[in-house]
Amino acid sequence: MSAETENPAAPGKTSLEDLKASEAVTPSSKVAHFSAENPLKLDSGIELAPWQIAYETYGVLNADKTNAIVICHALTGDQYVASTNPVTGKPGWWGLMVGPGKPIDTNHYFVICANVLGGCLGTTGPATLNPSTGTPYGLDLPVITIRDMVRAQARLVDHLGIETLFAVVGGSMGGMQVLQWAASYPERVFAAVPIAAAARHTSQNIAFHEVGRQAIMADPNWRSGNYIQEGVRPTKGLAVARMAAHVTYMSDESLHQKFGRNLQDRDNLTFGFDADFQIESYLRHQGMTFVDRFDANSYLYVTRAMDYFDLAQEFGGSLPNAFKDTKTRFCVMSFTSDWLFPTSESRSVVRALNAAAANVSFVEIESDRGHDSFLLDVPEMFETIQGFITGAARARNLPAPGEEH
Amino acid sequence: MSAETENPAAPGKTSLEDLKASEAVTPSSKVAHFSAENPLKLDSGIELAPWQIAYETYGVLNADKTNAIVICHALTGDQYVASTNPVTGKPGWWGLMVGPGKPIDTNHYFVICANVLGGCLGTTGPATLNPSTGTPYGLDLPVITIRDMVRAQARLVDHLGIETLFAVVGGSMGGMQVLQWAASYPERVFAAVPIAAAARHTSQNIAFHEVGRQAIMADPNWRSGNYIQEGVRPTKGLAVARMAAHVTYMSDESLHQKFGRNLQDRDNLTFGFDADFQIESYLRHQGMTFVDRFDANSYLYVTRAMDYFDLAQEFGGSLPNAFKDTKTRFCVMSFTSDWLFPTSESRSVVRALNAAAANVSFVEIESDRGHDSFLLDVPEMFETIQGFITGAARARNLPAPGEEH
Repeated sequence: MSAETENPAAPGKTSLEDLKASEAVTPSSKVAHFSAENPLKLDSGIELAPWQIAYETYGVLNADKTNAIVICHALTGDQYVASTNPVTGKPGWWGLMVGPGKPIDTNHYFVICANVLGGCLGTTGPATLNPSTGTPYGLDLPVITIRDMVRAQARLVDHLGIETLFAVVGGSMGGMQVLQWAASYPERVFAAVPIAAAARHTSQNIAFHEVGRQAIMADPNWRSGNYIQEGVRPTKGLAVARMAAHVTYMSDESLHQKFGRNLQDRDNLTFGFDADFQIESYLRHQGMTFVDRFDANSYLYVTRAMDYFDLAQEFGGSLPNAFKDTKTRFCVMSFTSDWLFPTSESRSVVRALNAAAANVSFVEIESDRGHDSFLLDVPEMFETIQGFITGAARARNLPAPGEEH
Repeated sequence: MSAETENPAAPGKTSLEDLKASEAVTPSSKVAHFSAENPLKLDSGIELAPWQIAYETYGVLNADKTNAIVICHALTGDQYVASTNPVTGKPGWWGLMVGPGKPIDTNHYFVICANVLGGCLGTTGPATLNPSTGTPYGLDLPVITIRDMVRAQARLVDHLGIETLFAVVGGSMGGMQVLQWAASYPERVFAAVPIAAAARHTSQNIAFHEVGRQAIMADPNWRSGNYIQEGVRPTKGLAVARMAAHVTYMSDESLHQKFGRNLQDRDNLTFGFDADFQIESYLRHQGMTFVDRFDANSYLYVTRAMDYFDLAQEFGGSLPNAFKDTKTRFCVMSFTSDWLFPTSESRSVVRALNAAAANVSFVEIESDRGHDSFLLDVPEMFETIQGFITGAARARNLPAPGEEH
C-alpha cells in the first residue's frame, strides 16, 4: 500500500497549531457553542463541557417554525448534506435527496444537518482540544452513544428555537439516530424516516467494526490515540479499516457487475501482489482517499456508538415500549441486497411500531447495490420519500411542494 | 490487541537457525523431495526446483492401488487431516470425516493429505530456504496457483506409484483443488467431492482477501516479506487479516446464536474500547491464536492462489469444457447459510457438469453455520459423503465399509 504520504493529523491539517485552524476544531460551517455552564450529559454519566456542534442549514425556517427537517448522517458522513465539503471539495453527500426541487425540497423545508458527536468535522470529538490539557482529547473523550448524538442534536434544535421537527431522516447510522429521536423525543418528531437501519447493532456488524478498530490500533502510528500530539497518523491502519468496511457496503451482485474478475490496466495476471484486479485497485483507492478526510480516533468512537446501540434495551428489553403512544408517522425503508442492515432488521422495527399501534409504512426497495443504496441514485427511494413527505406535510397543514402557499 | 508476544518467525520457531529445524522447513510429517533435475513447472512459467511436498497418509494402499483418496485442505489447513498437528498439538482438522469407521473410512481407504504449495507446514512455500541465497524465499517465491498446487499433488501421487485416485475430496479452497484435479487429470480421478467451493473466486471474495493482504503489508514488521531474516513477525497485521476473514466464515445467524450482543465477563458496557462484547473477545482470540500457527507470507500466497482461480478461463471461457467427456462421478455440496461460497456458485458447477453430461449429484445442506459448516459436525454432510463414497466404491469394485472383502 502506498498510503505512506504525509497525511494531516486532522483532515486537512498536521501539527497541533494547524489542528486549531482545522475543520475538526474550527469548522467552516455554522457552529453552536455550549459553555462550561451548559454541559451535555452523556450516557456514560460524564458531563461534557464545553462542547460544540457544527451544522449546516438549507432553506428557510417558516414563521411557525414547523417546517424543519433534521437529516442524520451515517458513520463517515458530515453536515455537508447538500453543499460542498470543505475538506474534499466534493458536493454534498446527499445532493440527490436534499436541495431545491429535490425529494426533500429546500424551497419548502428548512433542513438542518449536524456533524455527529464524536465526529471530526467540527462537532466535539476526539480531535477536539481537551480544555484541561490543551491537547486533543484522543481516548480521553468519553465514549459516545447514538443517544448522546441525538441529545446533542436536540440541544442544537433548542438553540435554533425550534420546538417540533417536521421530520427526521437518515440512513444507516443516521437511521439509528432517527429511531432514537422518535423514542427519546416523540412529541418533537412529526415524521420519521429510518432508511437501511436497525434498532440494534448485530453481532456480525460489531465483528466487522472490531476488525476495523483493531486495524487502526495495530498501526504503530496510532500511539494509543495520541498521534496528533506526536505528529504522525495511523493512515495505513485506517485505510485497512475503511477497505474492510467498504466491502460490506456493497453487494456481491454489485461487485460482480461493477468489477467481476476484470483486470486493472493489464491484459494478463502478473503473478504478483500488485492490484491485478480492478476490485483491488478500487479498494486501495477507497482506503487511501478516506484517510485524507477522516480521523482515526473518530472512527473508533463512531463505530463504538453503533455497536452500543440497542434501543429495546433502553426500554426494558421491549422495542414496542420505545414507541409507546407515539404519534410520529414512520416510513421505514430497506433494500433487497443490503446484507449489512438487512430487511429483517427493518421488519423488526416495523413489527415493534405495529405492536405500539404507530402510524407506519414500510417499503423494501429492489436494489442490487447493497447497503450503499441509500446514498445512490435509486429512484424508488426518492419517490417513496417524496410521497411520504408530501403526505406528512398535508397532515401537518404545511404547503407541500407544488401546492399553493 | 495484545498480540505483541514474541511469536516465532515460522510456526514454532524464531531465528533463521531455528527456521531450519521448524515445521515449515523440516516437517514432522512424511516429505517427498524433488531435486533440481525434477522441477515443478508453474503457471507463472517459472520452474521451481528443488521443491518438496509434505504429506500424511492414513490407512493402507491396497494391492491394486485403487483405494487412494486425496484430501485437499482449505486456506489455512494442513496435511494433518486426521492426526495431531505438531504446531498446535490439536487433533486433525477433519477428524469427524476421516479415520477408522468415519465417513471416509481409513479401514478401507488409503488417505493422502498434502500441505499445499505455498503453505507453511513443510511443502515449499515462502518460508522455504531459497537455494540461491540460503535465506527464506519471502516474496521471491513465484506466485502459486490452484493448478500449481494440484500439479504438485499429482507429482506426489506419481511418487507413491498410484495411477488413478479413487476419490479427491475437499472443502472451500480444497474444493477448488478437487475441481482442478477433475479438470486437469480426468482419467486419474474416479470420484470427486467439491464442498462449499466454486469454479472461480468472486469479486467480493477477492476483496476480502485483499483486505487481509493489505493488513499484513501495512504491518511495519512485515518488512517487504523479509521478516524472518530480520527477526520480527507481522503478528498484528496477520491477526487483523484472520479476524476479517473469520467473520466471513460464519453466518449472521450463527454469530447471533453464539454471541448475540452478550457481554464478555461483565454486567454492563464499560464505555471504552476493551472487548465489551463476546464477539469481540472471540475475534481477538481467533487473531492471536492464528499467528502462532501460520506464516504471514504464506497467507499472501495462498489467498492469491484462490483469487487467481477461474477454471472456465483455462478452458476458453467455458466451464463445461473443463469437464468435457469426463467419466469422473461428482458429488457437489453447498450449505444454505454459506455466503462466502454460496449455493449459486455450486449450482454453476453443477450446471457445467450437466452440460458436459457428467455423472453428478448435488446436495444443498441445511446449516446455519455458514462457510465453516464443512469443518463442523453437520450429520447430513457426513451421510451424503458416506453414501456417495460407498456407491462409488461399488462402481469401482472396491469393497465398501460393511461389505465382505
